[in-house]
Amino acid sequence: MTASILVDGVAASTVTVLDRGLAFGDGIFRTLEVRAGRALNWDRHFRRLAHDCQALDIPVPDEAVLRSEIARVAPREAVVKITVTRGTSGRGYSKPTETVARRIVAAFDPPEYPAELARDGIRVRRCDLVLSEQPRLAGVKTLNRLENVLARSEWFDASIREGLLCDREGRLVEATMSNVFLVVAGALVTPLLTRCGVAGAQRDRVRDLAAAGGITCDVRDVAFAELEEADEVFLANSLIGLWPVVALGEKKWPVGSLTRRFQSEIAADDAKA
Amino acid sequence: MTASILVDGVAASTVTVLDRGLAFGDGIFRTLEVRAGRALNWDRHFRRLAHDCQALDIPVPDEAVLRSEIARVAPREAVVKITVTRGTSGRGYSKPTETVARRIVAAFDPPEYPAELARDGIRVRRCDLVLSEQPRLAGVKTLNRLENVLARSEWFDASIREGLLCDREGRLVEATMSNVFLVVAGALVTPLLTRCGVAGAQRDRVRDLAAAGGITCDVRDVAFAELEEADEVFLANSLIGLWPVVALGEKKWPVGSLTRRFQSEIAADDAKA
Repeated sequence: MTASILVDGVAASTVTVLDRGLAFGDGIFRTLEVRAGRALNWDRHFRRLAHDCQALDIPVPDEAVLRSEIARVAPREAVVKITVTRGTSGRGYSKPTETVARRIVAAFDPPEYPAELARDGIRVRRCDLVLSEQPRLAGVKTLNRLENVLARSEWFDASIREGLLCDREGRLVEATMSNVFLVVAGALVTPLLTRCGVAGAQRDRVRDLAAAGGITCDVRDVAFAELEEADEVFLANSLIGLWPVVALGEKKWPVGSLTRRFQSEIAADDAKA
Repeated sequence: MTASILVDGVAASTVTVLDRGLAFGDGIFRTLEVRAGRALNWDRHFRRLAHDCQALDIPVPDEAVLRSEIARVAPREAVVKITVTRGTSGRGYSKPTETVARRIVAAFDPPEYPAELARDGIRVRRCDLVLSEQPRLAGVKTLNRLENVLARSEWFDASIREGLLCDREGRLVEATMSNVFLVVAGALVTPLLTRCGVAGAQRDRVRDLAAAGGITCDVRDVAFAELEEADEVFLANSLIGLWPVVALGEKKWPVGSLTRRFQSEIAADDAKA
């Protein structure tokens, strides 16, 4: 894995071991795609990043600084991961009196997902891991991601591309690295993320595109069993775009027309200058 | 803050930004005191550290290596923090096929808690933050510690030394940086940590000392309201030893005889060669 990295604007590959991001996962991150030097879906990524920093009371990095750093590490095609931590402090949990946030902007090779995943759809599983509920952190992409690591380690079958995650009431929340949408009677449904889960910028875009296109998108609690009745199911994140879900165990779904429509709209949005 | 640090046995102050400890909090840590070059309560610390690594499927560092690294960073008096992460991998949540754990052994200045805290006891508060429940990680001192950070940031009154944490059923679990014990009718009670919380090595020692001294220690669910009926309350961790809790709002407790007894026994145990 090659990576071009800036730490607080300076080319570097390391960070102090005293950083609170390492000590406590005290920080947030966002991952996005850069294509032909353009950070795709940037406005929504930055809005989420700013929201997440505020949720943890970490100063929000300057947007122009972030944009220029992305341009430096990713002049053409790349995956860029932006991490913001609460920086360095003493040993304990107490936050420093004055936080100097640490900013890590790292470019990785662009994603290489086979084209058939978006075209033909993917198989998923239901993970055994049950998401814990912490309303104070729900929706926020914090550096506390052990649940995702544990969930992703449940299967090795490469033909299964994602795992669906539920809370302890059996509500569908998300997948390990993506958000989930159901199509029910011509409308979109996506889980409310007020107890757990990560709200992705691609999820925001699907909601915005739906609103702009006159398609209802209900953001609400979704019982796992509702998947049975869904006409279409798809997953969204900033690197995969939209993947149709076509199988969960014995249950099958078609790649439906609304999934195709949102795939096209996202592609068109990404192609805009 | 001065720190003497070894990363994988080599003097260093930094770690790659690609470390999974930073990326996902994918690792564990333990903090202990070194006095006159001796790692206090070492056996229990190592047992916990090994257990925590196993809980995350991270290879357990060699005990002799850790001991020699502690001796190198902390020849005399220090606080030593041992962090073990899943090391470096690609960008996603998937664990590497073969994990090469990363080991960080860092020595800090010894704790400087005023002696009157252990002598006269402390005031505590009940934190507003409600601990989330994740049985897969309960008891484990993972690097996912944002809840502790949030809880510790709830108060600035320096006269309040700790904050008590409950789960959403209102069960007492722990304090932000210590475990909690109640004395009820001559026996110890300490919360079960199977849903949330961190199991400290000092908690293990109190339990062992109680067993050796013929004092019952019940490890069970504890309703927060049971504090009202407790004869004594104390907090335990590896740096504070035992702090008697003497006030929570209007509620007061005396510094009782069992608290004093365990303080003495811990001091005696720490003084042993």
